[in-house]
Amino acid sequence: MIETTVMADQAAAGELFQQIQQFYARQMRLLDTGAAEEWADTFTEDGVFHQNVAEPLTGRANIAVASRKRVDQLVGDGVTRRHWLGMLEVDPPGSDGVVRTRYYAISMATPRGAGARPQITASTVAEDTLVRHDGVWLVRHRLVTHDGTTA
Amino acid sequence: MIETTVMADQAAAGELFQQIQQFYARQMRLLDTGAAEEWADTFTEDGVFHQNVAEPLTGRANIAVASRKRVDQLVGDGVTRRHWLGMLEVDPPGSDGVVRTRYYAISMATPRGAGARPQITASTVAEDTLVRHDGVWLVRHRLVTHDGTTA
Amino acid sequence: MIETTVMADQAAAGELFQQIQQFYARQMRLLDTGAAEEWADTFTEDGVFHQNVAEPLTGRANIAVASRKRVDQLVGDGVTRRHWLGMLEVDPPGSDGVVRTRYYAISMATPRGAGARPQITASTVAEDTLVRHDGVWLVRHRLVTHDGTTA
Repeated sequence: MIETTVMADQAAAGELFQQIQQFYARQMRLLDTGAAEEWADTFTEDGVFHQNVAEPLTGRANIAVASRKRVDQLVGDGVTRRHWLGMLEVDPPGSDGVVRTRYYAISMATPRGAGARPQITASTVAEDTLVRHDGVWLVRHRLVTHDGTTA
Repeated sequence: MIETTVMADQAAAGELFQQIQQFYARQMRLLDTGAAEEWADTFTEDGVFHQNVAEPLTGRANIAVASRKRVDQLVGDGVTRRHWLGMLEVDPPGSDGVVRTRYYAISMATPRGAGARPQITASTVAEDTLVRHDGVWLVRHRLVTHDGTTA
Repeated sequence: MIETTVMADQAAAGELFQQIQQFYARQMRLLDTGAAEEWADTFTEDGVFHQNVAEPLTGRANIAVASRKRVDQLVGDGVTRRHWLGMLEVDPPGSDGVVRTRYYAISMATPRGAGARPQITASTVAEDTLVRHDGVWLVRHRLVTHDGTTA
């Protein structure tokens, strides 16, 4: 019995990690393909997106507006942006089902045109609080700290 | 019974994701270490490798020839190339067992010599169709779209 | 019965991969946040950290001293360093429980100050031998080969 339980716990941990990885892959794809409103919908209704280099954005509506503005600016500049996450750590869920994660993230920008080289525009570390709602994961709080901006 | 089935499904999804991740790690290592023919063997016999910046390559033989040429060129130039994949999404297998994936990929090049810095030479997004054959995964179709090359 | 065993094996493989991924994420975070001594503790007491561009470091104490020196240097220079691992392959454990892995790793450096761009400072391939001790994974041997440094 104990072995079965441990095995189930391990399978659950592996499954959770995999779910969260794919959540982030989809979330970043939405942002990078310019789907600013769908990207905002991956936060809770009252979700907070806080980058240490700007004022925190609170709520899906504000996140969507700010992201739409940035996305349109990049389209105007002819720049393709890609966000990569790595070195992900997923804590076991709390008794309330809330999951905390930590990861590195970079953004890359590629200008339009033959021979244009991608540039890494930012290196960051991030901490998320994720909740499960109607069978999908949502970000309740995200804090992104940009390398080079703190003492 | 239902709980057991869900648990098995989740374990299966976690296992599939992990299998595919390792498939890509090995596949990229083969290419990056110059094993062009073994790399070509990770495609199906009639597999298609299509990069939007070149004519599609169809079949293992053509993929091997083109890859060998490129690998030899890099060796001649004294450049080490590394392909990184990230932000992987693996769809659940269809009833035919076919698996579709999406991911980001970059290539990096490091020239020989002390103090030579790696450069990111391309940022891309890719879509694969994978099939299971004799216990291993193979690429049936790959479409790689390079950032900066589309309108 | 056979199906159950296969499922358990697959779940075990998925779980191992996920454990190792998180081990590396934590290990790199320790190094990158300057916790040189805790980083050294992720090696076995007699662990070897060998980079092909330097003399091998043997034992936690030596690894800690060398890492502390490097970390302090980076702090003095106002540089944030991040290590990313990718393209991870985890072999099935041997009968002795020892696990071998292969992966790519890059280091990135971001200088302090507005508009400072992250630079990739090294691209490497690494091979680890990992052992399980008191419920945690430890590195017994690590060989890191830097791109551009071999013939």
